[in-house]
Amino acid sequence: MRPEPTVAAYHHTLRVYWEDTDAGGIVFYANYLKFFERARTEWLRSLGVGQQALREATGGMFVVSETQVRYHRPARLDDQLRVTAALVSGGKASLEIGQQAWRLDESGQAVELLCEGTIRIGWVDAARLRPARIPLHILEKLA
Amino acid sequence: MRPEPTVAAYHHTLRVYWEDTDAGGIVFYANYLKFFERARTEWLRSLGVGQQALREATGGMFVVSETQVRYHRPARLDDQLRVTAALVSGGKASLEIGQQAWRLDESGQAVELLCEGTIRIGWVDAARLRPARIPLHILEKLA
Amino acid sequence: MRPEPTVAAYHHTLRVYWEDTDAGGIVFYANYLKFFERARTEWLRSLGVGQQALREATGGMFVVSETQVRYHRPARLDDQLRVTAALVSGGKASLEIGQQAWRLDESGQAVELLCEGTIRIGWVDAARLRPARIPLHILEKLA
Amino acid sequence: MRPEPTVAAYHHTLRVYWEDTDAGGIVFYANYLKFFERARTEWLRSLGVGQQALREATGGMFVVSETQVRYHRPARLDDQLRVTAALVSGGKASLEIGQQAWRLDESGQAVELLCEGTIRIGWVDAARLRPARIPLHILEKLA
Repeated sequence: MRPEPTVAAYHHTLRVYWEDTDAGGIVFYANYLKFFERARTEWLRSLGVGQQALREATGGMFVVSETQVRYHRPARLDDQLRVTAALVSGGKASLEIGQQAWRLDESGQAVELLCEGTIRIGWVDAARLRPARIPLHILEKLA
Repeated sequence: MRPEPTVAAYHHTLRVYWEDTDAGGIVFYANYLKFFERARTEWLRSLGVGQQALREATGGMFVVSETQVRYHRPARLDDQLRVTAALVSGGKASLEIGQQAWRLDESGQAVELLCEGTIRIGWVDAARLRPARIPLHILEKLA
Repeated sequence: MRPEPTVAAYHHTLRVYWEDTDAGGIVFYANYLKFFERARTEWLRSLGVGQQALREATGGMFVVSETQVRYHRPARLDDQLRVTAALVSGGKASLEIGQQAWRLDESGQAVELLCEGTIRIGWVDAARLRPARIPLHILEKLA
Repeated sequence: MRPEPTVAAYHHTLRVYWEDTDAGGIVFYANYLKFFERARTEWLRSLGVGQQALREATGGMFVVSETQVRYHRPARLDDQLRVTAALVSGGKASLEIGQQAWRLDESGQAVELLCEGTIRIGWVDAARLRPARIPLHILEKLA
């Protein structure tokens, strides 16, 4: 049995709705990338990094440059999931974020690791979509 | 200025993420049907109607038979929305549910009606997808 | 038996993939709005109206302001659908487009009307999202 | 300049629609997994493997167990893409498929590699979602 998600990681809780499932009766695997992004977005927000505000202020935005995901067990309609986000490594041009999706039982305990992966995000100038350095004040918030 | 969403309606709050937007810089209109469904699902759950459990118990499920939606104003990335659900009319074979999506300001007040519509849902036998009567114990919970 | 889709309407053919289905084993109803839009986009393109080029040239874009859809029969994984688009009525500020989705049999005949609706689209200035008149050269192409 | 997609791989062509894009003005990265799956599905179909028919006949289905994707360049609304699929390695329990998405120019030439990855798919009993051996007649078609 794997341990609980680490205390250090940011936690975001969500519900599985019809829109998330496919004809296999389970969550469509591509949708875990959406779940991971919701958790990353809320994690960044919790650090004071709002992406829409940031774009208006700096003209830049994060883009995903690489994803690696392993699917262990399926989730189903009505399941509640805990999705984690934690910084794995970071440089001036990109960040690597480790993420997991756990199924919760009725008491809210994470009982089953469904899916895990790493997401690399870089920074681009939003108008031309050219890679650029991540603004220093963002890196400081993540440090 | 339109009034606040009525107190009588069920309220569900959600955030707009990247997945919800399109290249127009706004929420893709088809996604309001997803938002409406999340609110309907949580409303039914609040009445003791869990759809996955119901399907396992009865072999039946709700399906959407008709949607009418008017789009007034766009929502953007990072906006918080309040989505309402209220029973408009109900019979033995189908229910009509009125729904609205409001943009919230930073204090959580609903300040702008973005989108509203009515969704008709019917009941089917899940294996054969044939229309059937809505189970009586569900109708009683909605009454 | 209903008649075939009218010869006058534009026809777009597509396949149902896993991404389109939900845990009911059928196409998720919100996705018919995507199917309708693919057909509208190809219909406009067939008239010489490319939306990305148009936005770069005029700074404007179409937005959906109203949708009405009735769902008659479900589609399943691997089904081939014919989706139609035809102008129902048009003014200077908005267009109403009638659309249907038909299931095709193995010989490519439209054998079952799955879903039909009307979609109203208006024109906006893309930067400010304010309603504007549809450019005259577009209306001429649709006439 | 990278070479064209290899002749040996299966090719599927698709258009980028509004539904595929996000507020960054580009294709939402999770949607390349959908594009890859459309190409895999058509590749399997070209080998005589229809997934819906297969499930009805065998009670089993493919599920994705691992994805690795690198995003090189963005695609935009109205772009035409060529998506490839080729078997990288295969065993009795899972297959690894290499996939690329290329942007086409107006003459239909693949001019820019947008995204590439490997997708591992396994076989499960659809009712219980337990891993199982891939049916022999499928492996023979892929050999």
